[in-house]
Amino acid sequence: MTLQEAIDKITPLDEEAMRYTRARWNTLGKPLYSLGRLEEMVISFAGIYRDKEPRIGKKAVIVMAADNGVVAEGVTQTGQEVTKTVTENMTKHNASICIMSGMSGADVYPVDIGIVTDCDNPKVIPRKIKYGTDNMMKGPAMSREEAVRAIEVGIEMVETLKNKGYTLFATGEMGIGNTSTSSAICSVLLDQSVEKVTGKGAGLTSKDLEHKIEVIKESIAVNKVNKEDPLDVLSKVGGLDIAGLVGCFIGAAALNVPIFIDGFISSIAALVATRIAPECSPYLFPSHCSNEPAGRLVLDAMGKQPYILANMCLGEGTGAVMGFTIADYAFKAYWELPSFEQTNFGTYEELV
Amino acid sequence: MTLQEAIDKITPLDEEAMRYTRARWNTLGKPLYSLGRLEEMVISFAGIYRDKEPRIGKKAVIVMAADNGVVAEGVTQTGQEVTKTVTENMTKHNASICIMSGMSGADVYPVDIGIVTDCDNPKVIPRKIKYGTDNMMKGPAMSREEAVRAIEVGIEMVETLKNKGYTLFATGEMGIGNTSTSSAICSVLLDQSVEKVTGKGAGLTSKDLEHKIEVIKESIAVNKVNKEDPLDVLSKVGGLDIAGLVGCFIGAAALNVPIFIDGFISSIAALVATRIAPECSPYLFPSHCSNEPAGRLVLDAMGKQPYILANMCLGEGTGAVMGFTIADYAFKAYWELPSFEQTNFGTYEELV
Repeated sequence: MTLQEAIDKITPLDEEAMRYTRARWNTLGKPLYSLGRLEEMVISFAGIYRDKEPRIGKKAVIVMAADNGVVAEGVTQTGQEVTKTVTENMTKHNASICIMSGMSGADVYPVDIGIVTDCDNPKVIPRKIKYGTDNMMKGPAMSREEAVRAIEVGIEMVETLKNKGYTLFATGEMGIGNTSTSSAICSVLLDQSVEKVTGKGAGLTSKDLEHKIEVIKESIAVNKVNKEDPLDVLSKVGGLDIAGLVGCFIGAAALNVPIFIDGFISSIAALVATRIAPECSPYLFPSHCSNEPAGRLVLDAMGKQPYILANMCLGEGTGAVMGFTIADYAFKAYWELPSFEQTNFGTYEELV
Repeated sequence: MTLQEAIDKITPLDEEAMRYTRARWNTLGKPLYSLGRLEEMVISFAGIYRDKEPRIGKKAVIVMAADNGVVAEGVTQTGQEVTKTVTENMTKHNASICIMSGMSGADVYPVDIGIVTDCDNPKVIPRKIKYGTDNMMKGPAMSREEAVRAIEVGIEMVETLKNKGYTLFATGEMGIGNTSTSSAICSVLLDQSVEKVTGKGAGLTSKDLEHKIEVIKESIAVNKVNKEDPLDVLSKVGGLDIAGLVGCFIGAAALNVPIFIDGFISSIAALVATRIAPECSPYLFPSHCSNEPAGRLVLDAMGKQPYILANMCLGEGTGAVMGFTIADYAFKAYWELPSFEQTNFGTYEELV
């Protein structure tokens, strides 16, 4: 499916399924609307699945892994080899995301969309667009065409996994340097100063942070990015991991499945996705609010409120899978709460 | 254990266990501090348990059930009989809290601390202080001595359950009218207008809400409450359910076990507990932020940030048990995340 085909496939949520689900919530033995956003989540999922009797099925976390040429400028504490190592560890139950996803019964699918070296591990899905992006401080991180191809990898991943029976998705990433690219996109698309939206990533000193900010500023300036054109911004100062995630979000919307956004980097990808295709937004669910300085800002810009406040900033999808658990609670309540009839007390009346 | 004995038993968290746990987090293969509040939770639990190797054990939700005389003033949509019905339903896996606690593997213990009628169900723990409080608009809801006895019931419950092997607690309540008592306490202790801290509870019209506000104002005025004396406030314009929960919080701190606060009513009890015994605060953990208008205000006043934002206001402990799940994630990460050695990449360095 091409990016344009995916965008064309996105339709609004099914109103009838949502009305039906909303009405059924009101038959359950509890004050009306008292499960708040848990009720809303089930209603939205019904609208997404076009199903009056929505259920949670198999869950997948798609982890886009790629390297970033800008690492050459010394904007990170660790070297690029960590991207590959951690990505391969994800296939051996030896990475944080594997442990966290275990809690919610989700499967982890790492994708090599642009690791800088070859990745021979057959369980890492091979979709390398190129061996890392170019150094954005010297020119575009990638071409517009490469960005589109990376987006289409994301769309393909959702489609393939949906065909395997997965119906609920979360996003994660692994890519040394990707808080730099995320802050660059954030600054441009939200028209905020680089200082405000840039943090220490996985561990920089205050002096390193100043340097990182200068590098991002220079990258934005050198590339003459067009803030009205999200694809231009993504390709010039973004990364292949972010582009792949953009595709996951647009693909999920095209294929009628809900998808949880992880932290800062995933949120930036969601922001780009909603700028490219605003109609995908109702398919995208926040999870936690990243501890990166712009974590809340990006969610706010999309009109999304986090479900979880835990000051996390690990990436890999570790916060997004906690969104799965919120969904599990919501659906357990929806399907198992006793009705007013069963609870043996009168119904609560509609608020006036 | 008397209230005073419990207060005297509370000591600060164990620094050595906390130091040890903090150091171990830093050996795990992830950016330092990147699990944020999950890391802090494990560290706090270590300090509470006085255990360098803290684990999550058996979980209990204590639900304090009581009626409120002020219901005679027409401040609720439903009648008092609902308190008893729902409380008994909790023993038959036929209440919201049973379903929600099932997700986190917790057991539910409903306590009759003041239901207005007899409660013959043997699985409801019988600790009735009296048959509902008196109508606070006509005078004190209860005597100071009754309030203390209700607090001591809460302390006893934690002690009994701890002796049965429970090491992690959550609070819940059932009591028609208890948003009125909670708003009354809130207004007095936080020095806020009744209008600001009063909501529609389980379903009032806007006109009903105006009446509820008048009743609360009148109750505060009639009783000449002393805002410097939390026990005076609790007994005059509070409820037996709230008093019982105050005891749960103080008892948990006295007995070195962590306890999750549920929504508005539980938060008010936590506020009273921390006013009576400020040293209990580190033992108290927020869960979600209630959708009642003063939900956030009360947590802020205690310096506690919710983990979950779901706009819930069901009560019974339904939000507090979601805190158990946050703890499950935190401990799973703590014990199962691979170490830097296992992940095969260099350690992250301390931030400067």
